[in-house]
Amino acid sequence: MQSRRIVLASRPQGIPRETDFRQEARDLPALQEGQILVANEYISVDPGMRARLNDEATYAAPLQLGDTIESATVGRVIASRHPKFSAGDWVAAAFGWSEHGLSDGRGVRVVAERRVPPSAQIGVLGIPGLTAYFGILDIAKPKEGEIVLVSSAAGAVGSAAGQIAAICGARVIGIAGGAQKCAWLREIGFADVIDRHAEPDIDAAVARTCPNGINIVFDNVGNSFLSGMLPLMRRNGRIVVSGQVADYNTPPAARPGLRNTSHIITSRLTIRGLVAFDYFREFPKAWSDLAQWIVDAKLKYREDIDKGFEKLPAAFIGLFSGDNFGRKLVQIEH
Amino acid sequence: MQSRRIVLASRPQGIPRETDFRQEARDLPALQEGQILVANEYISVDPGMRARLNDEATYAAPLQLGDTIESATVGRVIASRHPKFSAGDWVAAAFGWSEHGLSDGRGVRVVAERRVPPSAQIGVLGIPGLTAYFGILDIAKPKEGEIVLVSSAAGAVGSAAGQIAAICGARVIGIAGGAQKCAWLREIGFADVIDRHAEPDIDAAVARTCPNGINIVFDNVGNSFLSGMLPLMRRNGRIVVSGQVADYNTPPAARPGLRNTSHIITSRLTIRGLVAFDYFREFPKAWSDLAQWIVDAKLKYREDIDKGFEKLPAAFIGLFSGDNFGRKLVQIEH
Repeated sequence: MQSRRIVLASRPQGIPRETDFRQEARDLPALQEGQILVANEYISVDPGMRARLNDEATYAAPLQLGDTIESATVGRVIASRHPKFSAGDWVAAAFGWSEHGLSDGRGVRVVAERRVPPSAQIGVLGIPGLTAYFGILDIAKPKEGEIVLVSSAAGAVGSAAGQIAAICGARVIGIAGGAQKCAWLREIGFADVIDRHAEPDIDAAVARTCPNGINIVFDNVGNSFLSGMLPLMRRNGRIVVSGQVADYNTPPAARPGLRNTSHIITSRLTIRGLVAFDYFREFPKAWSDLAQWIVDAKLKYREDIDKGFEKLPAAFIGLFSGDNFGRKLVQIEH
Repeated sequence: MQSRRIVLASRPQGIPRETDFRQEARDLPALQEGQILVANEYISVDPGMRARLNDEATYAAPLQLGDTIESATVGRVIASRHPKFSAGDWVAAAFGWSEHGLSDGRGVRVVAERRVPPSAQIGVLGIPGLTAYFGILDIAKPKEGEIVLVSSAAGAVGSAAGQIAAICGARVIGIAGGAQKCAWLREIGFADVIDRHAEPDIDAAVARTCPNGINIVFDNVGNSFLSGMLPLMRRNGRIVVSGQVADYNTPPAARPGLRNTSHIITSRLTIRGLVAFDYFREFPKAWSDLAQWIVDAKLKYREDIDKGFEKLPAAFIGLFSGDNFGRKLVQIEH
């Protein structure tokens, strides 16, 4: 049986191009005792993957040329010689940009939470939702009435972060690109929204929208945005560094520094980075909370799904121009 | 009775000059009911005061031209018409660069801790020591065996921070300027010391001295130093932003940004600023701990005392070239 995968052909310079990726086909080997074969149904593309394509260590070693592009997957077991898995099981894993996954079961989890559809397992219940969950509940810890500003607010992480902050009783302001995204954010409970396409001066727009300052920034953009927020922070403000998408396509030496850092002392700020994987022991509780909020209509999410395995590179590249509206996934047609 | 004070004559550009200050003499008014008159015996000069001389808001409003320069003072009550104070009491206050303090008692504290000399009330038991105490114990929280790096380590804050971290069981590395300061840091329990006068490349020197990375940076310098430390931080590292002395003489727009911030995510860093005043409810416990450590010879401190009221501006200006060795004070001869 043939299976396609997409590998790193060359290290991208700046925004990745289709030619940085190469599709390969191979014959799947026969299943050994203790193994499972999974047909991936949905494969994710994430801005954070961009950093892994460079030849610099991030929170994991960089990908090597020829490696399958890593990402989260959800799919169905189509053959099992493993006691813990049965054919037909939905499983979440990280098989990467590959039509199938062959595994001894490590890192593969049978989807237990059935209140949400399978695709959500790698979206609002996947790393994006978990990043939002732990970033808000463990780091930001918004109190009733606090002002929470979320950048890239219409994205998978930002939209969940804003809604979870609202569940905590915070007043949540989102920044997103375009009227359509902004309208959706208002629908799902953001108290106010800033359309960055319509605002030439984001600092001024935030200052106007948050006249009493900001308690919490949940940032997915990076220093080019964050530097302007530091002077607007209230005392004991918290900044969750969830993503730095503006930097991922820029070589380290060319990235802007974080300015206005005198406010770190004068406003007693805390700046903290997180990687959701660190909280894996608390994932079951998070999944349960997230699913319950979805059932209760307190947490809404959007998926932006392209169909066809070969669409993966373009879907990924489009993230950096804000083409996507919601969690970007590619659905595989087997 | 005449009393001298020193006021802000002009806003300094860059490193302050003597002409930015002006000495004035005035007649002290007669003591009213409920007032005390204090002869200040020791007056502090602090790098952090520099920011208050600019026309920008910091953690307090900026000084106005003609205002007495603010600073910590310790002195003796020479006349009292206040029930809580008696002539002869040692009192700690913030009368600023003034030979005397006339007060209704607010913000004036009778020195209760007699195990240390009066000058230490505005040094190792004053804001510098309290900044070190809360920065290490409340923010950095070093665990046994963790690597703690302290910049400006021979200063009043840094030397206390390093020793308190050592009391917690950490391995403490200090950075200081000159062989004499470095030798003293070794004497008082720093595990290793980097002489920044002898090291053209501080980043390389730190990397060599801390081959397994750094858990905690207690920084008094600012981004010009800190940017190079971010790549050396271990996972879950903490950065205490205690001071930014390299920035105080530079206009905000010209200050270097914090670079290498991708490590905030990849190493899950926490960067946090503090102002010791915020912990005022916990000062009595801190004073007691600090005094006990001094009695037990676990906490040593140096004072660098100039004599004569008129020496205040020069003593302050000298801080920015690292002239001082220990807590810089000016002793007033009444």
